[in-house]
Amino acid sequence: MGKGRIEAFSDGVFAIIITIMVLELKVPHGDSLASLKPLLPVFLSYILSFVNIAIYWNNHHHMFQTVHRVNGPVLWANAHLLFWLSLIPFATAWMGENYFAKWPVALYGVILFLAGMAYYFLAHSLTGLHGKESGFGRALGSDTKGKISVVIYAIGIGLCFIHPFIGFGLYIVVAILWFIPDKRFENKEE
Amino acid sequence: MGKGRIEAFSDGVFAIIITIMVLELKVPHGDSLASLKPLLPVFLSYILSFVNIAIYWNNHHHMFQTVHRVNGPVLWANAHLLFWLSLIPFATAWMGENYFAKWPVALYGVILFLAGMAYYFLAHSLTGLHGKESGFGRALGSDTKGKISVVIYAIGIGLCFIHPFIGFGLYIVVAILWFIPDKRFENKEE
Amino acid sequence: MGKGRIEAFSDGVFAIIITIMVLELKVPHGDSLASLKPLLPVFLSYILSFVNIAIYWNNHHHMFQTVHRVNGPVLWANAHLLFWLSLIPFATAWMGENYFAKWPVALYGVILFLAGMAYYFLAHSLTGLHGKESGFGRALGSDTKGKISVVIYAIGIGLCFIHPFIGFGLYIVVAILWFIPDKRFENKEE
Amino acid sequence: MGKGRIEAFSDGVFAIIITIMVLELKVPHGDSLASLKPLLPVFLSYILSFVNIAIYWNNHHHMFQTVHRVNGPVLWANAHLLFWLSLIPFATAWMGENYFAKWPVALYGVILFLAGMAYYFLAHSLTGLHGKESGFGRALGSDTKGKISVVIYAIGIGLCFIHPFIGFGLYIVVAILWFIPDKRFENKEE
Repeated sequence: MGKGRIEAFSDGVFAIIITIMVLELKVPHGDSLASLKPLLPVFLSYILSFVNIAIYWNNHHHMFQTVHRVNGPVLWANAHLLFWLSLIPFATAWMGENYFAKWPVALYGVILFLAGMAYYFLAHSLTGLHGKESGFGRALGSDTKGKISVVIYAIGIGLCFIHPFIGFGLYIVVAILWFIPDKRFENKEE
Repeated sequence: MGKGRIEAFSDGVFAIIITIMVLELKVPHGDSLASLKPLLPVFLSYILSFVNIAIYWNNHHHMFQTVHRVNGPVLWANAHLLFWLSLIPFATAWMGENYFAKWPVALYGVILFLAGMAYYFLAHSLTGLHGKESGFGRALGSDTKGKISVVIYAIGIGLCFIHPFIGFGLYIVVAILWFIPDKRFENKEE
Repeated sequence: MGKGRIEAFSDGVFAIIITIMVLELKVPHGDSLASLKPLLPVFLSYILSFVNIAIYWNNHHHMFQTVHRVNGPVLWANAHLLFWLSLIPFATAWMGENYFAKWPVALYGVILFLAGMAYYFLAHSLTGLHGKESGFGRALGSDTKGKISVVIYAIGIGLCFIHPFIGFGLYIVVAILWFIPDKRFENKEE
Repeated sequence: MGKGRIEAFSDGVFAIIITIMVLELKVPHGDSLASLKPLLPVFLSYILSFVNIAIYWNNHHHMFQTVHRVNGPVLWANAHLLFWLSLIPFATAWMGENYFAKWPVALYGVILFLAGMAYYFLAHSLTGLHGKESGFGRALGSDTKGKISVVIYAIGIGLCFIHPFIGFGLYIVVAILWFIPDKRFENKEE
């Protein structure tokens, strides 16, 4: 089964998720600069989520470059990843509108944690299909960065209950970790 | 007529339907965990609809792999399928916001039933074009699973008036039936 | 300049327009069948607009099949068409929510008229690029159906002020006219 | 790394941005022609933003035609451009709903300025990858039009505080400047 349509469908979903988040930036009633001020936490959440979705798109792009074919389990592992990512606009808005209160920040972390797990499952369903000795399998390797990310997310969720800014700070740390595109796949392109 | 653009347009519509449903998860005003509780039925509806759209996308993907060309009737049979699927976000939200009351659950079933019929018409318009003896025609076969699905939906709609959970349960049964990708087409890919 | 990206971008816009219209079907508060009744005119408007956008997509698809290349004026003629089509969700909702009152029905007609004109300009910018003796130019011919459509729309807009149902009826007539895919281009595909 | 998916993802984002802006044209409650009147400034803002996004899409299309490959920095420079463009629907609505008051018009200019800078960075990240002597590098040249645009935007933002119409007028001047597709890249296509 070719990979063209799974890429096209995923690109569509990524593009829509990243764009509809902006609909949560509700247009303020006043026309003064001050009327924008209450939007600041929503805007900060928007920036982090935009970067997170862009990171997932970049890594998805890199990962599928070394992929030759897909099968049923890969299609479902991909849909599972898109499911958790589709909840990011909701979690972003809840977090932003509540000025980074503990439960919203924790929920945001839970969704990032589950998306991270889903990405890990997707990578491993592709390894299962291509074999550990394929270009894909060797490029993925032990996937240390993927494992570290979900661990940091889990710690971040827990630390939200000391102070939500600690959790939020750790989510930013993971974003920075992934900001650098995944060199493993870049070198393996055909 | 090539199949490239009908796939691209359908992928776009599938991607948008699956993503805009999340806009019905209205951000709650409170910041406590309890403020998420009223969203639970909407969230459960969202999961079922996400899985249903993903199933349609997967099957659409599988079906078009063995397709060689499309014509006017196929374009319209495809638009007809997308029409019913486009109503799923509305029916999902109505069902979730009314805690699975009988009329919303029945309407959700009616839309799934009509989408199932439309999928059946699409499959048969493609058989009409390619012939029963083509790779596509033989892969489709007697399409037992498609026929069973619409029958279960029809029964489910009726049983909503005894208790809506019976109807809802039957819709889940159909989703499980289709969850396994359609092996018929997977083996016939070029 | 290749035609691939103009098709991809247009497919995206068509897919979004056809799908976001459903967001105007506001979820009713009650859970009875009667609570759906006020949505009926919005739903009827939605059906007509869905069919109209599907017709434009089908014809756009057919038209670009015989196209070999695009240039700046074609890109802008295409954007101009998409501009008027992008207003259809607004006009659809205004018409549906006001039970087919005369001004909303007339505005809907004006937008269809302007979209019809834009389609005509797009066709002619493509003829200008490919020449009247090209496959495209001969397939387009005198474009009688395009000319008739805009004339019927103009008459329909005027007749809205006698009774809006006459105008609405004429818009349906044009939809039926175009429902049959454009055989001219279908025979000229490569 | 191939350029196909970055084009597909960007096309998706462009298509969504240009289309969701229309959701800010809120359907009026009355059914008279007069009830449309308060929408006029929102509609004028919509036209300018539609043209601006179409210009960015056209130039993005032209620019990527001469591109052979992309790398990590290009992916991020592209995401950075899309980030600022994604804020245009918000700024458009704020400007339209406040009848072109000074702060909203200035903010609209700031976002156009930052998008212009991001486009400049994207162009230069592509030059860095392809080299100044490549087809791309020579086609881009000294990028005078890009530099002039951001200077006019900066002046426009400042002049909003004398009268917002001067700023708005200057944004229209830049749109006219770019309306003519970029001949530099059109001649260099493969």
